[in-house]
Amino acid sequence: MKSLDEARALDAADPLRTYRDAFDLPAGEIYLDGNSLGALPRATVARLAGTVRGEWGRDLIRSWNKAGWIDAPARVGGKIAQLIGAQAHEVLVADSTSVNLFKLLAAAVKAQPGRRVILSEPGNFPTDLYVAQGVAETLGAELRLAPREAIVEALDEDVAVLLLTHVHYQSAAMFDMAAITRAAQAKGALVLWDLSHSAGAVAVDLNAANADLAVGCGYKYLNGGPGAPAFLFVAERHQAALRSPLSGWMGHAAPFDFGDDYAPGEGISRFLCGTPPILGLAALEEGVDLLLGADLPALYAKGQALCSAFIDVVEDRCAGLGLTLATPREGATRGSHVSFRHEQGWPIMQALIARGVIGDFRAPDILRFGFTPLYVGFEDVWNAAEILRDILTTGAWDDPAFHARAAVT
Amino acid sequence: MKSLDEARALDAADPLRTYRDAFDLPAGEIYLDGNSLGALPRATVARLAGTVRGEWGRDLIRSWNKAGWIDAPARVGGKIAQLIGAQAHEVLVADSTSVNLFKLLAAAVKAQPGRRVILSEPGNFPTDLYVAQGVAETLGAELRLAPREAIVEALDEDVAVLLLTHVHYQSAAMFDMAAITRAAQAKGALVLWDLSHSAGAVAVDLNAANADLAVGCGYKYLNGGPGAPAFLFVAERHQAALRSPLSGWMGHAAPFDFGDDYAPGEGISRFLCGTPPILGLAALEEGVDLLLGADLPALYAKGQALCSAFIDVVEDRCAGLGLTLATPREGATRGSHVSFRHEQGWPIMQALIARGVIGDFRAPDILRFGFTPLYVGFEDVWNAAEILRDILTTGAWDDPAFHARAAVT
Repeated sequence: MKSLDEARALDAADPLRTYRDAFDLPAGEIYLDGNSLGALPRATVARLAGTVRGEWGRDLIRSWNKAGWIDAPARVGGKIAQLIGAQAHEVLVADSTSVNLFKLLAAAVKAQPGRRVILSEPGNFPTDLYVAQGVAETLGAELRLAPREAIVEALDEDVAVLLLTHVHYQSAAMFDMAAITRAAQAKGALVLWDLSHSAGAVAVDLNAANADLAVGCGYKYLNGGPGAPAFLFVAERHQAALRSPLSGWMGHAAPFDFGDDYAPGEGISRFLCGTPPILGLAALEEGVDLLLGADLPALYAKGQALCSAFIDVVEDRCAGLGLTLATPREGATRGSHVSFRHEQGWPIMQALIARGVIGDFRAPDILRFGFTPLYVGFEDVWNAAEILRDILTTGAWDDPAFHARAAVT
Repeated sequence: MKSLDEARALDAADPLRTYRDAFDLPAGEIYLDGNSLGALPRATVARLAGTVRGEWGRDLIRSWNKAGWIDAPARVGGKIAQLIGAQAHEVLVADSTSVNLFKLLAAAVKAQPGRRVILSEPGNFPTDLYVAQGVAETLGAELRLAPREAIVEALDEDVAVLLLTHVHYQSAAMFDMAAITRAAQAKGALVLWDLSHSAGAVAVDLNAANADLAVGCGYKYLNGGPGAPAFLFVAERHQAALRSPLSGWMGHAAPFDFGDDYAPGEGISRFLCGTPPILGLAALEEGVDLLLGADLPALYAKGQALCSAFIDVVEDRCAGLGLTLATPREGATRGSHVSFRHEQGWPIMQALIARGVIGDFRAPDILRFGFTPLYVGFEDVWNAAEILRDILTTGAWDDPAFHARAAVT
């Protein structure tokens, strides 16, 4: 992409261009952080008003039956299943990604008494490693880390479960899900895929890859809102054998019998725990419905094209300004965000945000830009790169205000 | 209370009577299920609209800092602390009651290697027992049950933690928190109090009772909305020694350093796990703020008076119609709901609901009526009892439509 005109021509030809109006985005900004917090779908505003005033306020307790609240975890899970190549009854919405990681990792370790190792890679998203450490400590297991190039060689007969994030949160590098799954299963291990940066961003086909387990985030590309509930996947063939350690009442076979003894529900329902978060589920369902209405192959292709265009324009227009690409160049091996390293990454990102280009910073030196095909266009890519160039060439980033650190990055 | 006129006089003299207008309640109904799902505060409608359109839609990712999203679990926890006799830094809002039970039970068992028993009572709220079973199975511990009359005698040197619900979900019977805590601590055990039917309903003073641990529900008397996030309490003196097995990134000492190794946060923050559910937290904060604005001693006294009045009127007006009181008669030993047994409990409750008296049914034969002092008055008590009398005397409950069971009771 060599010019603003070319960017505009690409937008004019984009079959997804009308989706931008489905979002309530602030004027005058380029939002490139939908990989961290997805934007607000306009439909979500009305949906939440109805959930709050109609279902909660007017129908009150009756909404558990009448409004289908009790079915929401399975219903929304069944919709997410369509985005990740799963059957409807293999996916639930529940809790947070971290809590779901605990459930599935612990279940996988418990189910394989002869195997005591959780294998992952250093630099995986922190909560994945932290939760794995908690599971290991709780169960007397062990967390083993091996670099991604050596992850297959690190699989042995001690590994109960291989825990990997499909698209890396910093680099956007994407594992070959089918190949890794095959290699792990050949060694007798299960694989747990974290799809937080994949679902809604890249084509995922869990069943085609013969995947075992997965979790993922509701508030990134699924546009479910801040702290949206997360999802989990358990392949049908594993559901009867795996038990969630978090045996709360919603995972019981008959929660409203109010008996004293826990009996896990049939199938995926046993991975529920407490009362489902209805407001979060309602918002998430709107975000997922919006995605399901889109042409998904076109969506994934546009995400790749936006990322490639950003890489090209930045490398062309910002050459020699201290940026180093930290993302795979090949679209088929990366997710829908692009990272550049710069030793002044923090103040540069603050300067970008002050100019209306909203990306984020990841320690120690990563400038991260998410390209969400439903509401980002090629003109945004061009303009963001131009503003980045201006900030770097003028040194505008070197302002005390931009050096101050915030609580949340 | 002997007449409708007397009920109306009591309402006219009620210092809390104006609070009913703070709720968006359906016209023509008597809502006696606020002990299961609290009603919608009017302020919550505007708060959620602002959270959704302003904080999420306009400020997007910046709201983690700008709108204080990141502080919400501690901020709202600090407010709930005022309702339960805790210090602000001893309470957090996070996850569900079930997940919080798992965190604290597992931490309590792990911290006492020589003690392998979780003690509780049969008939405790199911999720408490189910989660305790999950913790026992996960850690190789044991769940021991003893009837409440014999619970103190069942304490021995094997008990790591005594798990009790302060106000029983069926009978509303209330434990003497200080006495039980003292007895358990004398045997070297910790006590975990489930305050789900207590917080916002009865006076609770955790620190006066020298309590160790507690959890509670956000969607009952706190009016936090369906599936609202729950809260947890860890006494300051235990915070450094206890570790949550659910070691997610929000409980890390420095979550935004993105390091590979888990280090628990100082103090209560280590009991956070995943990304906080912002929509649920916003709604819960409004519900808690509303309570904190009320005269709490008057609130608790009114709750007791409403329950006593209902017992009196029903026993007087429905004498001989098959109802048996299943709740303590003495106000100081019960929570803010009243249960009656009737062998036709299910269809009778459906008939009540059809007549606009919204209570609930708990297996096998309990008709349960919650009296939430902020939005229920003495005239409601009188009218509900009259409608109950009419349904019982006419046999109107014996209609096929009222016998059909629902998914959620």
